[in-house]
Amino acid sequence: MGTTAWEGRMSAYYGQELHGPFEMFDLGDFVLEDGGTIRGAKLAFATHGRLSAARDNAILIPTWYSGTSKIMEQTLVGPGRALDPERYFIIIANQIGSGLSSSPHNTEGAFHGPDFPSVRIGDDVVAQYRLVTEKFGLEALQLVVGASMGAQQTYEWAVRYPDFVRRAAPIAGTAKNKPHCRLIGQSFIDALTSDPAFNDGHYRNSGDVRAGLIRHARAFALTGLCQEFYRLELWRDLGFSSLDDFFVGFLNAYFLPMDPNNLILMARKWQRGDVSRHANGDLAAALGRIRARTTVLALSSDMFFPPADCEEEAKLTPGAAFRVIDTRFGHAGLFALEPTYVPQVDAALKDLLAAP
Amino acid sequence: MGTTAWEGRMSAYYGQELHGPFEMFDLGDFVLEDGGTIRGAKLAFATHGRLSAARDNAILIPTWYSGTSKIMEQTLVGPGRALDPERYFIIIANQIGSGLSSSPHNTEGAFHGPDFPSVRIGDDVVAQYRLVTEKFGLEALQLVVGASMGAQQTYEWAVRYPDFVRRAAPIAGTAKNKPHCRLIGQSFIDALTSDPAFNDGHYRNSGDVRAGLIRHARAFALTGLCQEFYRLELWRDLGFSSLDDFFVGFLNAYFLPMDPNNLILMARKWQRGDVSRHANGDLAAALGRIRARTTVLALSSDMFFPPADCEEEAKLTPGAAFRVIDTRFGHAGLFALEPTYVPQVDAALKDLLAAP
Repeated sequence: MGTTAWEGRMSAYYGQELHGPFEMFDLGDFVLEDGGTIRGAKLAFATHGRLSAARDNAILIPTWYSGTSKIMEQTLVGPGRALDPERYFIIIANQIGSGLSSSPHNTEGAFHGPDFPSVRIGDDVVAQYRLVTEKFGLEALQLVVGASMGAQQTYEWAVRYPDFVRRAAPIAGTAKNKPHCRLIGQSFIDALTSDPAFNDGHYRNSGDVRAGLIRHARAFALTGLCQEFYRLELWRDLGFSSLDDFFVGFLNAYFLPMDPNNLILMARKWQRGDVSRHANGDLAAALGRIRARTTVLALSSDMFFPPADCEEEAKLTPGAAFRVIDTRFGHAGLFALEPTYVPQVDAALKDLLAAP
Repeated sequence: MGTTAWEGRMSAYYGQELHGPFEMFDLGDFVLEDGGTIRGAKLAFATHGRLSAARDNAILIPTWYSGTSKIMEQTLVGPGRALDPERYFIIIANQIGSGLSSSPHNTEGAFHGPDFPSVRIGDDVVAQYRLVTEKFGLEALQLVVGASMGAQQTYEWAVRYPDFVRRAAPIAGTAKNKPHCRLIGQSFIDALTSDPAFNDGHYRNSGDVRAGLIRHARAFALTGLCQEFYRLELWRDLGFSSLDDFFVGFLNAYFLPMDPNNLILMARKWQRGDVSRHANGDLAAALGRIRARTTVLALSSDMFFPPADCEEEAKLTPGAAFRVIDTRFGHAGLFALEPTYVPQVDAALKDLLAAP
């Protein structure tokens, strides 16, 4: 299938205009861990900077739930920042189901929408490994850094390819998803599937699932931010005049253009993130394989991945450092909307990159 | 209307067999703060112990969301406990909408179900004041103690009737509901109203709203317990063999027999709990009126009413003590399912009752 046909299947939201520039890597018929196959699978990626002749300056960033390479760039990459394109070759890989890579909404035929096969975090990492080895001929990554579901992929990288990953920085995410976090993912899924217009995923247009998408945005509002954010009315700092103004102008605006089946695919992947399956369910043994120099970063007010959950895994990761980023935005601190966020994350990543 | 007709309108769940014994106090046509009227309003109450001849040993306990006088008795009252019926005359008042007192489900005619008038925490406290003064001729309460929505009523009592309340112990609840807590209440309401069978509250049988009631139970599971409860699989301590076993055997079993309109009435009351309306929105001024010796109790892992929210209000309450009860059950710590709960709450209440 040609790029034109592919582009034609993209909705305006998931296109180059809002999320580009990005390129496509062809994975062919991609067999998944749970047994399914994505036929003609594609991985959307963006790059920043130039690969050195020695191919020794590459950094990989996987994406988080509902995010694309664009928000990863905006929150993590820039001249003078830790991830400086003047110095590093930065590859941002959009996860399967993100809407840019192969996803329920852009797959035609029998595997469209809710019939898209089941995907796990490991599938993303295998696809990304093929991208960086086959497309760029890499033999190592100086750093894998990702937040939230990107942290899940970061852990998966470090456990699955221990000799390939020199440094790892999972931010606000875990190697094995915790039961309460699974309930949060379920609250997102239930918000969408409980809308009668969802129709078991066989809706005609994603906009028909408006009530479900708004409930999904409210579910994010409940656990994706934090008590302090609301008590101090920090939405005012973002230019909103009331809580409803924030809900509609920020959360609805962000989530309403998205495809429910895409979101559900990602949420299920998130719920089942677990590197311990590489060691027969033994999380300590799985994390014990990591050779990357690792800095585990947690967000102080995160309800998705509380610092205690992150620290527990840092202790199981050989030689890992653990740092807490102070934020009053809960998990949504990752959006870098507080001026205090970037200096903290950059300081941690600069330290990590400066280490041998 | 006679008691027999009243009893006849009760479903099996809301009756004497499961929640009794309780009695009824007739409020007549009861005009509400928001302007509505409950005609032939009734307050269900239970008593334990005997009122002294001097009428100086009375304690009042209001009920929490979805609870009745029975669970208040089970978690707070007993021989040898701080609230000892051998020593005190303990009145437990079921809140309006609880299903035992006047409620959407047991009101016939024009004001049935979703057309039941809007009720506030203040209405409950006025009704309870009438009960304790008119029925029992009290001139003071030695203690008002309540948890969750019961704490909201406790604060309302202490602010509204400062000379009547000698001691107050709000447990895991606030005087002014915080914005994030309002979102939690909304997640409960939305879980019910999003079920098509809810039909704007005009369902025929509450069991028809089964999907909504189960979603409501899941919403409680998400924020009513806590990360640690799930991470440590503490449902095992309650005799459940898996998380699903706990959801169905505990949470569904608890919530499924309840009436959705009753739950929504209580949730809206909870969301709008706010004593500052007695002082033109000035919370410090409202709490400054309190003359009761007050001990504010918070639960260490509570997501509904985090310790920080409770402590903030304790600081605004003249002379108040602040104590944190350690629990790994989140807000559901109130159910006293951990053996460590009762000793902690009783120690705090004994100290308070021993003080002059």
